Amino acid sequence: MKSIVMGYPGRGVEAWKLQERDVPKPGPGQVLVRIRAASVNFRDLRIAQGAYGGPAKQGLVVLSDGAGEIAALGPGVTRYAVGDRVASTYYPTWNAGPYRAEVEDVGLGIGDQDGVLAEYALLSAHGIVRIPDTLGFEQAAALPCAAVTAWQALFEGSSRLLPGSSVVVQGTGGVSLFAAQLARATGHRVIATSSSAAKLERLGGLGITDRINYRETPQWHEQVLHLTGGQGADLVIDVGGGATLASSLAATRGGGRIAVVGLLGGAGPTIDPLPILFRTVTVEGVHVGSLAMFESLLRAVERSKLQPVIDRVFELPDAAQALAALAAGEHFGKLVIRVP
Amino acid sequence: MKSIVMGYPGRGVEAWKLQERDVPKPGPGQVLVRIRAASVNFRDLRIAQGAYGGPAKQGLVVLSDGAGEIAALGPGVTRYAVGDRVASTYYPTWNAGPYRAEVEDVGLGIGDQDGVLAEYALLSAHGIVRIPDTLGFEQAAALPCAAVTAWQALFEGSSRLLPGSSVVVQGTGGVSLFAAQLARATGHRVIATSSSAAKLERLGGLGITDRINYRETPQWHEQVLHLTGGQGADLVIDVGGGATLASSLAATRGGGRIAVVGLLGGAGPTIDPLPILFRTVTVEGVHVGSLAMFESLLRAVERSKLQPVIDRVFELPDAAQALAALAAGEHFGKLVIRVP
Amino acid sequence: MKSIVMGYPGRGVEAWKLQERDVPKPGPGQVLVRIRAASVNFRDLRIAQGAYGGPAKQGLVVLSDGAGEIAALGPGVTRYAVGDRVASTYYPTWNAGPYRAEVEDVGLGIGDQDGVLAEYALLSAHGIVRIPDTLGFEQAAALPCAAVTAWQALFEGSSRLLPGSSVVVQGTGGVSLFAAQLARATGHRVIATSSSAAKLERLGGLGITDRINYRETPQWHEQVLHLTGGQGADLVIDVGGGATLASSLAATRGGGRIAVVGLLGGAGPTIDPLPILFRTVTVEGVHVGSLAMFESLLRAVERSKLQPVIDRVFELPDAAQALAALAAGEHFGKLVIRVP
Amino acid sequence: MKSIVMGYPGRGVEAWKLQERDVPKPGPGQVLVRIRAASVNFRDLRIAQGAYGGPAKQGLVVLSDGAGEIAALGPGVTRYAVGDRVASTYYPTWNAGPYRAEVEDVGLGIGDQDGVLAEYALLSAHGIVRIPDTLGFEQAAALPCAAVTAWQALFEGSSRLLPGSSVVVQGTGGVSLFAAQLARATGHRVIATSSSAAKLERLGGLGITDRINYRETPQWHEQVLHLTGGQGADLVIDVGGGATLASSLAATRGGGRIAVVGLLGGAGPTIDPLPILFRTVTVEGVHVGSLAMFESLLRAVERSKLQPVIDRVFELPDAAQALAALAAGEHFGKLVIRVP
Repeated sequence: MKSIVMGYPGRGVEAWKLQERDVPKPGPGQVLVRIRAASVNFRDLRIAQGAYGGPAKQGLVVLSDGAGEIAALGPGVTRYAVGDRVASTYYPTWNAGPYRAEVEDVGLGIGDQDGVLAEYALLSAHGIVRIPDTLGFEQAAALPCAAVTAWQALFEGSSRLLPGSSVVVQGTGGVSLFAAQLARATGHRVIATSSSAAKLERLGGLGITDRINYRETPQWHEQVLHLTGGQGADLVIDVGGGATLASSLAATRGGGRIAVVGLLGGAGPTIDPLPILFRTVTVEGVHVGSLAMFESLLRAVERSKLQPVIDRVFELPDAAQALAALAAGEHFGKLVIRVP
Repeated sequence: MKSIVMGYPGRGVEAWKLQERDVPKPGPGQVLVRIRAASVNFRDLRIAQGAYGGPAKQGLVVLSDGAGEIAALGPGVTRYAVGDRVASTYYPTWNAGPYRAEVEDVGLGIGDQDGVLAEYALLSAHGIVRIPDTLGFEQAAALPCAAVTAWQALFEGSSRLLPGSSVVVQGTGGVSLFAAQLARATGHRVIATSSSAAKLERLGGLGITDRINYRETPQWHEQVLHLTGGQGADLVIDVGGGATLASSLAATRGGGRIAVVGLLGGAGPTIDPLPILFRTVTVEGVHVGSLAMFESLLRAVERSKLQPVIDRVFELPDAAQALAALAAGEHFGKLVIRVP
Repeated sequence: MKSIVMGYPGRGVEAWKLQERDVPKPGPGQVLVRIRAASVNFRDLRIAQGAYGGPAKQGLVVLSDGAGEIAALGPGVTRYAVGDRVASTYYPTWNAGPYRAEVEDVGLGIGDQDGVLAEYALLSAHGIVRIPDTLGFEQAAALPCAAVTAWQALFEGSSRLLPGSSVVVQGTGGVSLFAAQLARATGHRVIATSSSAAKLERLGGLGITDRINYRETPQWHEQVLHLTGGQGADLVIDVGGGATLASSLAATRGGGRIAVVGLLGGAGPTIDPLPILFRTVTVEGVHVGSLAMFESLLRAVERSKLQPVIDRVFELPDAAQALAALAAGEHFGKLVIRVP
Repeated sequence: MKSIVMGYPGRGVEAWKLQERDVPKPGPGQVLVRIRAASVNFRDLRIAQGAYGGPAKQGLVVLSDGAGEIAALGPGVTRYAVGDRVASTYYPTWNAGPYRAEVEDVGLGIGDQDGVLAEYALLSAHGIVRIPDTLGFEQAAALPCAAVTAWQALFEGSSRLLPGSSVVVQGTGGVSLFAAQLARATGHRVIATSSSAAKLERLGGLGITDRINYRETPQWHEQVLHLTGGQGADLVIDVGGGATLASSLAATRGGGRIAVVGLLGGAGPTIDPLPILFRTVTVEGVHVGSLAMFESLLRAVERSKLQPVIDRVFELPDAAQALAALAAGEHFGKLVIRVP
């Protein structure tokens, strides 16, 4: 079978290589999935750069997010049948309940565990979810990391986000767009920021009317305060870490919440934590989510007929271009790879 | 000023009488509201019947739910201005936080406290909320009891209702219709029951596609199971008490929740509580809600532009007809009285 | 190996029989546990009576609650080692998160799955917890069903039980005694009921000072109201179902909670649900709990050095006497069987 | 009456002056309290320094935390009687529910509102709580700010703190000692840090066995990891802000929580927020709490017979020495002023 593996660890967008392999056989509790699509996340770029907990293991199949049909069942698997349409979960051992450090022990495409970017992938029967009929494989492959992160930040955070609340999303990466779409479909107010007039225009096409160009308005938090009658937003989904968190704190209402879901700003910038106390704000790290959260997300996606925003679909031999597009940062929505 | 008072306590729909009174003066912490509309609830019918904690006091202005403009401020009121559009809260002393028994100590139109069905009403400045521009007075007057109850049952219950969840609403009274509208506007699945084909038709007009005629299908819970793939609903909003609770339990998924919001079935019928344990269900009584919940509701109503369903608007001299219409039970939505 | 199996399904306390068997071999993801102790629960009596979802399967090893040392590991088990001291979990597939109906699909000693009352038992590596040093095997075997139920009712219910709250426990069965001990060790007020002066005396020995003899005071809820200044208890842990629930509702404060954990009163008695609404009470079914809850319980048990109350320890060949003692209902605490 | 007022705003420990005044009269909804004791908090030092939202108003009676007996009732106050023993709440308008920015609008001893350090103080009937019999006035006066903050951080935070959890408290100021005492009385594990061997010794006297001298062990977070089997604490109550937060993050388990309750480290030091995401930690600002939280605290204090740790009691004419002692930072527990 064709597979994309970590060929040159540490070389970033040039790290991947196409490799022919034998189709694996499912062991006890496993399913063999005929992968039809996969998608890239920043984590995959950092793995390829060797910047995600050390150098990646050579020869490992890449990527965590994939979707396809079950081709074979291992011994003891009873809840699925051959032909079932499924997607992978980001954390194969996080079944339900809140985050615990041990869910980091196992991941797809890291450590010793092959990922999903191949014609066939072995997955744990506890590490997959059924895809609703409203989604194709390419759309389903867009969800495991980014959409589940958005879902957890919005609906499974430490405090309930009540309908009618205001949510700030930053930029137009996968998590931010899913958060914008999910929040809008469930009766919340979305305030979106971007540095690009063209992307803000596209946000309008998704029904987002409150938009801020943070290149033109670097003090974008003041605009958030203005839009919310001086209060600040109930929830800010922060994707920049140290680079954006000070502004995010200023844009949040007293008693409000910030979900830190990404670190696009990179390491380095520090923040003054005083506003956390002075404004009685909660800042919480949000890391994807559990299988149970993914199933809840899918139910909401099915109900609202939400369609993931996919920037581009690449063919398998061009998979590295998806990684390059991610690194370039010009995308609007998810970057998907089709597996024929 | 014209007012409707408890003229003949215990006589039910014939208990009310029109009376001329002096306009009261706001004391410290009070506002005088020029009432423009009010609405009736079952509690008002029971008060008129003398079935709500003993015989009602003769001469008391009736009704808890009203809306109008502030006409005068008492000493010490700073957060409002004359002319502000406001609605009454059902529990004048329930500011925030969960229910406590002491909120029952004070109510509008019961005990010693005049209600709102008059040209002017005295209200505590802690017992009113601002009306958003998307609502007229008649619509706002429909909310204090029924819509806040629906809001609490859906969004402030003991467990979070995640978007995409399924909610059963029973009949087409005020709480049920608000619950149906609110749940639908926020991405949930609504399954509605009614005994009337005509009312089910009107529910369709609100976008509710899953409808069950419980006259034709007395085992309506089986239909709920069928519609939810055998699981049962995540939340059932029960309005009948002993008369419906057994079916509601059968219609709820294992681990699900029932919000008991009404007792239309009256006293008498008892239930077997075994399914509460066997199905691990939570059954919770829900009684209107706090000022903070009302404010959250109004924010969601404003955002979604939700329009309360009003069955009929009566003129002040015909107020008793609103009570009679409530008793007849043929209404679809709220019964409102206009105060000229 | 010696094992106690379902020899005569439906015969109740005479259903069990001692049988010699081969020691099983752990499959993938399983551990073989050298059982040292087990305990009985009402569920086991009902299974023996054929009253727990139909007649039990002949030849099945009985009981869900056991403790011992790991004797062998199946393929793929990495988180445990031979010699680890462990206890079984009641629901082998309920890892974390709230109750879902599907956790009922697999149980120990029901369906096709052997239980733990044998020299060796096969358990899923996801269906065991480590025992802290403060507990011996007999004590640990007392916990899986009763103590986890008490833990969930107290600390994982739909609303938080704040320290200083008052909790009513009924009788002196396993769940009630664990609830009393746990609540007391964590700063809550315990009000205990029993029909036996001798048992109330023993409750005093556990530090429970608020005790009610419900034989002498059949209106025991009035005594609860008296002890709580007329308010009622914050939480009532109800073990009788229809037979006690009406009194439990009367003993609960407005806005309080009832955890229904047992049905000792049997099927038949029904209740009037009106107080659920009128007193705004939450009634929730509580069924044991997840592995994560069990781990939390064990941490609290270790910290407080709580010692389970064990009424009697039986020897393996006398195992049926434990079932008979349970049926007789004279016990104070758990009935344990030693496996030599 | 004798009162301590802001005599020389901005002069810090020399800002206060003794002044004779007329006893005020309670207006509608107010009570007149014969103050018997008061206590100082860092907020009072900062107000005296003019560092708390601008220069304080000359002549204002100082302090927020006081206790005494009701001497007179204003019109409309029905829930209290003359002679009732009460304490002030820190936020006079925060009745219940979560923090909202508007609770900052009114405070005792700031803005235009006199504080409590006088023979008599006017308080809102919605801004007082009853004192249980287990507490004297000096002890009750120690609670309103520090103990309620500790209570909220422990028990009303965004996630439940389960009994058996581990809690880190820093230093021996009021909040930290209350947190240590409350956590210990409710079955949690307390790990305390201090720079003073003598204070660590005194912590031992309170039953705290896990103690770290952070002068000797500047990498105290490593010691926390060691004590928790490499996991980290479930909750860290951080009192230093930027000066301690990086270590607090390192001392918290993945998925754990940090309550930021103080800024003793002052403004200036910044932190790298990456661990918030990488360790999936929640950082929340905690500001005292509501009247409902204070009432819950008092119930737990009464039940556990917790005795506040009072470092020293000063006489009214020496009140400024209490402020000086606070500034010196050598205290162990609260600094209280007796009002004869």
